[in-house]
Amino acid sequence: MNRVYFDNAATTQMDREVIDAMLPFMESHFGNPSAIHFYGRETRAAIEKARKTVAKYLNCTPGEIFFTSGGTEASNMAIRCAVKAYNLHHIITSPIEHHCVENTVKALEQEGTVKLHFVNVDEKGRFDLNQLEEILSSINERCLVTLMHANNEIGTMSDMNAIGEICRKHNAIYHSDTVQTVAHFPFDLKNTHVHFISGAAHKFHGPKGTGFIYIRHDVKIPPMIFGGGQERNMRAGTENVYGIVGLAKAMEIAYDHLEETREHISSIKSYMIEELKKNFPDVLFNGDQEHSLYTVLSVSFPLNDKSQLLLFNLDMNGICASSGSACSSGSNQNSHVLDAIKADPNRVAIRFSFSKHNTKEEVDFAIAKLKMLTMIPESVA
Amino acid sequence: MNRVYFDNAATTQMDREVIDAMLPFMESHFGNPSAIHFYGRETRAAIEKARKTVAKYLNCTPGEIFFTSGGTEASNMAIRCAVKAYNLHHIITSPIEHHCVENTVKALEQEGTVKLHFVNVDEKGRFDLNQLEEILSSINERCLVTLMHANNEIGTMSDMNAIGEICRKHNAIYHSDTVQTVAHFPFDLKNTHVHFISGAAHKFHGPKGTGFIYIRHDVKIPPMIFGGGQERNMRAGTENVYGIVGLAKAMEIAYDHLEETREHISSIKSYMIEELKKNFPDVLFNGDQEHSLYTVLSVSFPLNDKSQLLLFNLDMNGICASSGSACSSGSNQNSHVLDAIKADPNRVAIRFSFSKHNTKEEVDFAIAKLKMLTMIPESVA
Repeated sequence: MNRVYFDNAATTQMDREVIDAMLPFMESHFGNPSAIHFYGRETRAAIEKARKTVAKYLNCTPGEIFFTSGGTEASNMAIRCAVKAYNLHHIITSPIEHHCVENTVKALEQEGTVKLHFVNVDEKGRFDLNQLEEILSSINERCLVTLMHANNEIGTMSDMNAIGEICRKHNAIYHSDTVQTVAHFPFDLKNTHVHFISGAAHKFHGPKGTGFIYIRHDVKIPPMIFGGGQERNMRAGTENVYGIVGLAKAMEIAYDHLEETREHISSIKSYMIEELKKNFPDVLFNGDQEHSLYTVLSVSFPLNDKSQLLLFNLDMNGICASSGSACSSGSNQNSHVLDAIKADPNRVAIRFSFSKHNTKEEVDFAIAKLKMLTMIPESVA
Repeated sequence: MNRVYFDNAATTQMDREVIDAMLPFMESHFGNPSAIHFYGRETRAAIEKARKTVAKYLNCTPGEIFFTSGGTEASNMAIRCAVKAYNLHHIITSPIEHHCVENTVKALEQEGTVKLHFVNVDEKGRFDLNQLEEILSSINERCLVTLMHANNEIGTMSDMNAIGEICRKHNAIYHSDTVQTVAHFPFDLKNTHVHFISGAAHKFHGPKGTGFIYIRHDVKIPPMIFGGGQERNMRAGTENVYGIVGLAKAMEIAYDHLEETREHISSIKSYMIEELKKNFPDVLFNGDQEHSLYTVLSVSFPLNDKSQLLLFNLDMNGICASSGSACSSGSNQNSHVLDAIKADPNRVAIRFSFSKHNTKEEVDFAIAKLKMLTMIPESVA
């Protein structure tokens, strides 16, 4: 079957050059990076080279980058370990965070460690930064602010510099889940007031099972996973060498081609918006179209017996899309993001998310299938 | 340079069949296993197949296997989450545990959560099980016992059934770090009283960055890493699909050839013992030679200006070995294991650890280099 993959916010296909960079470390350069002999030095060098690559593209120092098993571990670590290190009692977050932040802060609340404060979001998923200031002003101790850089379901982006300035003013520690933006947008960490960001290689054509946490030089936290001295005592466990090599290669490719990729994907997204408007008079779009991931388009269709099964029928017709976060798309729960932006319950959201590999022909194909599946009753699968 | 790799307890080279099993999941089967469309179902099915494979070889149910980023994460999770779930205040452990256990229990002690009790070990690294009983009898609440199955530095194995029976009698929760024994020895978990074991694929010719935790059906713990619903809500984060596929393939190969591999490696180890005794009258061996990993040989040489630099000079002559745990071989600290067994500080320990790929010719090569490096002063590098 001819398949169109429009679920790139869930995960992306690895670049061939990424696989080629990883293979020597799977085949012959197999040493444990902690070993002091030839095989160990070989893989240790590869890890430190990867760290320098990541630091270069994000404009920070290699000493601020720590490799993890992925974005979820990185966000867990930032939040849990900052709370522990600074004995924090207040976390300010939003109702539209990814589950890796939402469930971590809720666990800390349940454990009785912290009190949670939620920043309001408007109907486009934008944070109320005035309210953030108010909350910070009202708490007379140091707070952790964790607000995502871009929402994975609806694409709305936050202003990291604005939030960073507010945090600086109030001496708050600021973590941002940047899993959807790393290697998709430029970062200038030396000149951004953010203490922790997190990344996952598989969101930018790198391998699954590898990510990183940026820990700004002026915050000190304990590890979350204890053991050997890997990652300068910050993350124990034998390093996923091929994964780390693949992450760095994927980041290098992404940033070296950032503008052309961004233009290409943006044109695909714009084309899909136009075609949807042309063909579906009732269509709406979730999120802030002015400040959005160029990779994500959350489309809202009127609820009816056709649209209810739309995602399943799209899949049966070769279109891979998502209802929202991949991490929860297997569950029957409503999207907490759509709830928070007070999305009309009489509409159905489908997330189409794009990569550099997608084409306008694929959009045409998807539009044709969407028309078939939503408009002509007898052809519904 | 001709190189001999005798550091297989640190990590092993991946089997070609393992890489071949992983490649389709790096190249084309790239979906997020949480996605409900074609690409997601494909990788979800691969993960569940891998889980069944692991469960089959360890004789447990697939529902008791949870994939992690490695053995260190698995041991951290077992200990930290069992303490939390059962509100435990006492951990009984040993002074020769791997750092992933040692530093986790010490962190819990520092946090004021638990009191630690250490089982004595004798000069061969054997646990004093009478004392274990005494400690358990003296504590009037439920305890966590964490005692490794085999020591990674000196090879000494513990009796999991005996410890399990003691734990059963005293209603203790029993975790065993089995990273050195999984896929090297048979397991029959349905008939073993152990609540948690941990494994790391890279110790048995599988990929780095992937491991598992076995959680017996009758213990319930919270996750350590929060987020999406992966691993039945027990370990959030997009799954390392290729890693998991590779882990299962490596385990399948290991267990399908267990006896021949064991015989081969045992013969290599015996040959090396013989040749060492023949050529080095002063040589000794650390650990319990009666109950030992067949993969690990800890050799003790008299301390002198030659032997002090032996590991480095072996490496310069193409022999890759270790001073002990790879996880700490970069540090200058003494081995806590050799300290605990009261090893003679006037001797130097070198760990040679073997795999199915090693040959007697490699042993001959190593013996020749050892003679050159320890006996003939003018040829020392």
